[in-house]
Amino acid sequence: MAITLQRGQKLVLATHNPGKAREIAALLDGFDIVTAGALGLAEPEETEATFVGNAVLKARAAAEASGLVALADDSGLSVRALGGDPGVYSARWAGPGKDFAIAMAEVERKLIAGGSSDRAAWFSCALAVAWPQGPVVAVEGQVHGTVSFPPRGDRGFGYDPIFIPEGGAQTFGEMDQAAKEAISHRTRAFAQLKAALIG
Amino acid sequence: MAITLQRGQKLVLATHNPGKAREIAALLDGFDIVTAGALGLAEPEETEATFVGNAVLKARAAAEASGLVALADDSGLSVRALGGDPGVYSARWAGPGKDFAIAMAEVERKLIAGGSSDRAAWFSCALAVAWPQGPVVAVEGQVHGTVSFPPRGDRGFGYDPIFIPEGGAQTFGEMDQAAKEAISHRTRAFAQLKAALIG
Repeated sequence: MAITLQRGQKLVLATHNPGKAREIAALLDGFDIVTAGALGLAEPEETEATFVGNAVLKARAAAEASGLVALADDSGLSVRALGGDPGVYSARWAGPGKDFAIAMAEVERKLIAGGSSDRAAWFSCALAVAWPQGPVVAVEGQVHGTVSFPPRGDRGFGYDPIFIPEGGAQTFGEMDQAAKEAISHRTRAFAQLKAALIG
Repeated sequence: MAITLQRGQKLVLATHNPGKAREIAALLDGFDIVTAGALGLAEPEETEATFVGNAVLKARAAAEASGLVALADDSGLSVRALGGDPGVYSARWAGPGKDFAIAMAEVERKLIAGGSSDRAAWFSCALAVAWPQGPVVAVEGQVHGTVSFPPRGDRGFGYDPIFIPEGGAQTFGEMDQAAKEAISHRTRAFAQLKAALIG
């Protein structure tokens, strides 16, 4: 079995996050995408310590449960002065209500408590494609920048309102989708994935 | 970049375990293999909760550190009555001296303490191939069977002397290498990997 993706083929998107599903659909045109949520698939526990590890785990679980090729994303914000936190816990810091205002306030609180003026941070996006009973392919993209408070902008999702990419002045939450897409961690990961898997 | 391996190409084998290196070299003929140990690469911390996760982590670390395509293996024994333990901790149960007599005795001790007569177990082998600054491909093979005490046979390595594959009478430790290779988890993983990556 060659590991390639053919445009037009059916892909299960192993995410229950509507913001991610929207961005991924825009980046992966030409595929017949169905979400794990629409198929009623359970979300597996994200046990791994890396973005790539969790993307692989989610893609494999969705592929085995659906019998279809599955694509999963695991992404988050790493803050250097917090030792890389929230990292793979980015979604969990938002709590069961998925309230990222709480998560962003927690980043600010910990930075103030830590006393460092270092605001370096980066977004990572790992993508994995798994074939049922078969291989899994993963890639990772990053975008470096700084965190800034208070949060600004109501576009994007997650930690976007506190992240300013290198060389920019606006947060990801203030940028329109096309401007964010031009440089985002997710775009970079998709470029790698397409180069690797789409002929 | 197409994700394929060409016979004759250089591959870093991200293992410091001579038993694994020997088996892998036999299963992957036609490649110019150098071990991570020979290159002086550090062993990364195995932080992941799955075999595939740790294989991916080790392959990526070796690829980034060496600038070469890297192949990593993560494998171990899962015992059903122990909730899948030792699993990804298979090597760690052998302690810093890598003494699998200790690890096998620990499996027996926990089985007796647990009181179950269930001896079902399986070996898993995850393999990952990573390209520097590029994608990683992973597969997983398994072989099911039972654990049996006392350990028998001095061939193989690790938990081989307590594992009897389904339908067999000898432990992996008693079987000659060709008989073990014909059915092993590692053979099954390599068959998948070759089908996926070698044209």
